Amino acid sequence: MSDLLDRLSFNQMTASPWSLAEAVHQCHINNVRHIAPWRHKLSDNIAADAQLIRNAGLTVSSLCRGGFFSAPTPEARRDRIADNRLAIDQAHALNTRVLCLVCGPAEGQSLPDARATVLDALHELLPYAQQANVTLAIEPLHPMYCADRSVINTLQQANDMLDALAHPNAGVVVDVFHVWWDPEVFTQITRSAHRIAGFHVSDWPVPLPAILNGRDVMGNGVINIRALRQAVDATGYTGPIEIEIFNDALWASADATLIPLLQQRFQAHV
Amino acid sequence: MSDLLDRLSFNQMTASPWSLAEAVHQCHINNVRHIAPWRHKLSDNIAADAQLIRNAGLTVSSLCRGGFFSAPTPEARRDRIADNRLAIDQAHALNTRVLCLVCGPAEGQSLPDARATVLDALHELLPYAQQANVTLAIEPLHPMYCADRSVINTLQQANDMLDALAHPNAGVVVDVFHVWWDPEVFTQITRSAHRIAGFHVSDWPVPLPAILNGRDVMGNGVINIRALRQAVDATGYTGPIEIEIFNDALWASADATLIPLLQQRFQAHV
Repeated sequence: MSDLLDRLSFNQMTASPWSLAEAVHQCHINNVRHIAPWRHKLSDNIAADAQLIRNAGLTVSSLCRGGFFSAPTPEARRDRIADNRLAIDQAHALNTRVLCLVCGPAEGQSLPDARATVLDALHELLPYAQQANVTLAIEPLHPMYCADRSVINTLQQANDMLDALAHPNAGVVVDVFHVWWDPEVFTQITRSAHRIAGFHVSDWPVPLPAILNGRDVMGNGVINIRALRQAVDATGYTGPIEIEIFNDALWASADATLIPLLQQRFQAHV
Repeated sequence: MSDLLDRLSFNQMTASPWSLAEAVHQCHINNVRHIAPWRHKLSDNIAADAQLIRNAGLTVSSLCRGGFFSAPTPEARRDRIADNRLAIDQAHALNTRVLCLVCGPAEGQSLPDARATVLDALHELLPYAQQANVTLAIEPLHPMYCADRSVINTLQQANDMLDALAHPNAGVVVDVFHVWWDPEVFTQITRSAHRIAGFHVSDWPVPLPAILNGRDVMGNGVINIRALRQAVDATGYTGPIEIEIFNDALWASADATLIPLLQQRFQAHV
């Protein structure tokens, strides 16, 4: 068993104002071993981005994000598929095996149709992902994002899709912020065994200050993060643990003290 | 089958600034037949409140709210039980058969313990409710309220509790705002047959402007309210349908045009 801190991965959205170069630098000087870049932060030269990350001794735990499969017209849905093929190419170029998927809202489809569209899109994309040695990792998002970010809202849904897909390159990302409330969470984590492609941590402060950017640093909220991490580990998952915190106040204050704080909280609460 | 509009019930929180007398008056002049008062709006003379409502030709669809069972200490939990007995008395005095329950957050208990506390409290309160001819109606709240309002977050949880309680005075309230996202919602509505004690409508605008007071008038959001209403009706439920909208902007503008607007939207979307 490796030291837990060695599994810490810095998800780039935790310091949204930072460039990729700045995020890589901050990870490097703090001996962080993994990073999760976001696509909108990549440069036009992805080979150079990959080299920057590699030279800092970092591996890429995942690329964020593909998805957003549902759309009002067939043409728009083809565009989404094309964009996801590009995301798979980018993940491959960054030497990561995980493309994190935020599956998207219904966007004019009914909820059942939108959910079927997600499944159809995954069926179509999985052969391409397999050639690139990339896992398409469904991240169930909290139900409060159902209307604008993802119609996949529980681990049970994700597991049901993985059962239906039955493909070695289909996986799931467990994010404590999204799943902590679910009475089925431990049952469904167990059911996710050998299909967990990522594990994300943050915390749920009370009251939650904002729907999108209100999550907080581990220890500032009510989530029993350690119990969830131990459940994920008990399935055999030994991969990186991404810290992913969308928080306006944290972004405004992000400086050289951020990663040391995260490392301290990671050891105390994850 | 009665006219749908006859089933409209005005939940008092839809016009939070109104006194009970004002809400009753607005219902009366618009031929609304049912009202759902909130406990903090009751006067010290509940017999007079009941008379006020009865004289306006209104019946009370439910009293809001009991619940908040979990607490950090045994003493505090006894206080919650006592408060719920009072709420049952108040429901009885208002001639309603339904006490709507917001079951409360964990408040220092673990989530599993808090959920067990809810079940324990219901076991204890049900005989008292039965004597008062009041149904204790569990309202699952959206998972985004798990940390601060209710650890009961899905209809499946509520149905599981009703199975465990197996008591004629235990029921469930289905509120579209809380359950619309759930992939299991139609299955669980069917499972709720003959235990549905109330049905609440509003809508989920995109983006949602606020966590607590962001819900909106029917037709201003993405919920397929009619499909849910038809599913509830298909279980045999023929009771009142409460309009319950927590919305700061609506409250600020609440005047004589409110109920006619709600009636129009009710007919178009419910």
